[in-house]
Amino acid sequence: MSDNTQIVLVERPSGNLEESHFELRQGVIPSAEDGQVLVRNILLSVDAANRAWMQGATYRAGVNAGDVMHGYAVCEVVESRAADYAAGDLVYGEAGWQQYAVLAADTLRRCADHKPLTHLHSLLGIAGKTAYHGLLNVPGIEAGEMLLVSAAAGSVGSLVGQIGKIKGATVVGSAGGPEKCAWVVEELGFDACIDYKNEDVSAAIREHCPQGIDVYFDNVGGDILQAVLFAMKLHGRISCCGSVSQYDGGMPTGPFGIPGLLVIKRLRMEGFIVMDFLDRDAEAERDLTEWAASGRLKVTEDVIDGLENAPRGLIGLLAGENRGKRMIRVGPDPV
Amino acid sequence: MSDNTQIVLVERPSGNLEESHFELRQGVIPSAEDGQVLVRNILLSVDAANRAWMQGATYRAGVNAGDVMHGYAVCEVVESRAADYAAGDLVYGEAGWQQYAVLAADTLRRCADHKPLTHLHSLLGIAGKTAYHGLLNVPGIEAGEMLLVSAAAGSVGSLVGQIGKIKGATVVGSAGGPEKCAWVVEELGFDACIDYKNEDVSAAIREHCPQGIDVYFDNVGGDILQAVLFAMKLHGRISCCGSVSQYDGGMPTGPFGIPGLLVIKRLRMEGFIVMDFLDRDAEAERDLTEWAASGRLKVTEDVIDGLENAPRGLIGLLAGENRGKRMIRVGPDPV
Repeated sequence: MSDNTQIVLVERPSGNLEESHFELRQGVIPSAEDGQVLVRNILLSVDAANRAWMQGATYRAGVNAGDVMHGYAVCEVVESRAADYAAGDLVYGEAGWQQYAVLAADTLRRCADHKPLTHLHSLLGIAGKTAYHGLLNVPGIEAGEMLLVSAAAGSVGSLVGQIGKIKGATVVGSAGGPEKCAWVVEELGFDACIDYKNEDVSAAIREHCPQGIDVYFDNVGGDILQAVLFAMKLHGRISCCGSVSQYDGGMPTGPFGIPGLLVIKRLRMEGFIVMDFLDRDAEAERDLTEWAASGRLKVTEDVIDGLENAPRGLIGLLAGENRGKRMIRVGPDPV
Repeated sequence: MSDNTQIVLVERPSGNLEESHFELRQGVIPSAEDGQVLVRNILLSVDAANRAWMQGATYRAGVNAGDVMHGYAVCEVVESRAADYAAGDLVYGEAGWQQYAVLAADTLRRCADHKPLTHLHSLLGIAGKTAYHGLLNVPGIEAGEMLLVSAAAGSVGSLVGQIGKIKGATVVGSAGGPEKCAWVVEELGFDACIDYKNEDVSAAIREHCPQGIDVYFDNVGGDILQAVLFAMKLHGRISCCGSVSQYDGGMPTGPFGIPGLLVIKRLRMEGFIVMDFLDRDAEAERDLTEWAASGRLKVTEDVIDGLENAPRGLIGLLAGENRGKRMIRVGPDPV
């Protein structure tokens, strides 16, 4: 069988990622062997981490020139040669930027029975669980505390801030541009949002967080982290989720005041990956589902149609054009 | 009364601290008012933090030009106008670089009844408690873990490594020069010591910590912290005690890979100050006393005679010339 549309990374970017780094090609639909399943890609997740993978191996394999671009997807099993799966099953796995993939059964997770399927990337996917675990199980948050969230209009940040509000914190976001900031406050219910592209971030933090910051949920690193370090309260906690400001470009320097400010202010900075908390995913799914059903948590999705649009979808995400969880619809939902 | 020898900071250093930044003068012996005590300075602690105080206010007041240099000391009460203290009491307080000081009674702590008095700065003082709390109550250490300690020949590092060995860790130090490194291994019992002045630190870490580092006790910041970040194991912990490499000179940049490496490796960096653990000091004093009495913990002291030598004592400490806890004998023990 042929007709397996694929998008290949033809060159690892050294500076900004561009469409010319990718190439669309027609491949063949592979066959499953023992212990494998053939899957059809339905919804492909687009994440800032995809760009970080192009910098080399980290907690997972890097993406190399010539690879079908890596990516996590919600898929339907087409053919199974593994005991645990049957045709028609919905699974989550690393299908990559292609219509069909053969995957080892032991790398898959069965999807929760949940509609719409898009929620498997947003509310109940990496976005929702990263927000949940990265706020509640890393720094924690108490009622009355001041929480600052960067990339507040993004897939994770938009949920972190709302979870902070549910827990009784005062929540300030940062996002790029007045429209996004207004949306973060008016639609998502943050107490304030700093426009880092047009405001002096340090001055805005002093205005909105006059007593300082208890918890900073860091999606971006770079200049905002630098400003925040000086504005943290004594014994403040920083949850290190990502550093999207540093993925697309050269090797960044670190912030001033590491480790000096950590000592003076007795700060704790802690990195995490959502997969570290698999044993608490059931609790996360229960709470997230309940909050969304009751309307306390708004789920924002940004679904782009067509695999061929994945490169510009990722490039646009790195430039901050998305609101909420961006994903690519590669094929229709199962009937 | 006059004849109170004092050392004044005449200028805040912008680069390296030099003797010309200090001036010796004869002041008057002040009088205590209600709620105050007049103390005679016996042993003055010299710490890298003294230099950091000259950069401005932090968790405590900064030292300004014209101030009698600040410093913590073991003192004898000469005259008391406070209910809790009487002449002859031994107290610990911020007497500064002078022979006599008037201090508010509520800023003092009564010294434990312990001989020699020098232990009140080393084993049972800031050095011992910083080592104890900063290792056991911040990152913790488990038997079999790999512990790296910078400034391993210093007042704190020399104790941290030995406490790590008592707890069953493998302990690697870093220190400047082959003599200090040999002393750290042969006298203090570290498993290895990296000479950061003469070795490639990253290569030496790979040699001595081939599986990576579980816990890094950071006294220095700067280049060693940079090398360590890349050598930490997944879920490693960094106890941020100080950044002596950065006190004496200009504003330092931070390490590469903050926050990226914290995320990828899921590291936790946490700063602390010994005063945060006052409620656990009794436990620290009990353990430290027992370990020293049984010979499992060697206490190294570096006592310099004469207040007039305090400036060169601090400058030399910043250059790393001391082994163990440096202090200045300002006056004789009480009879």
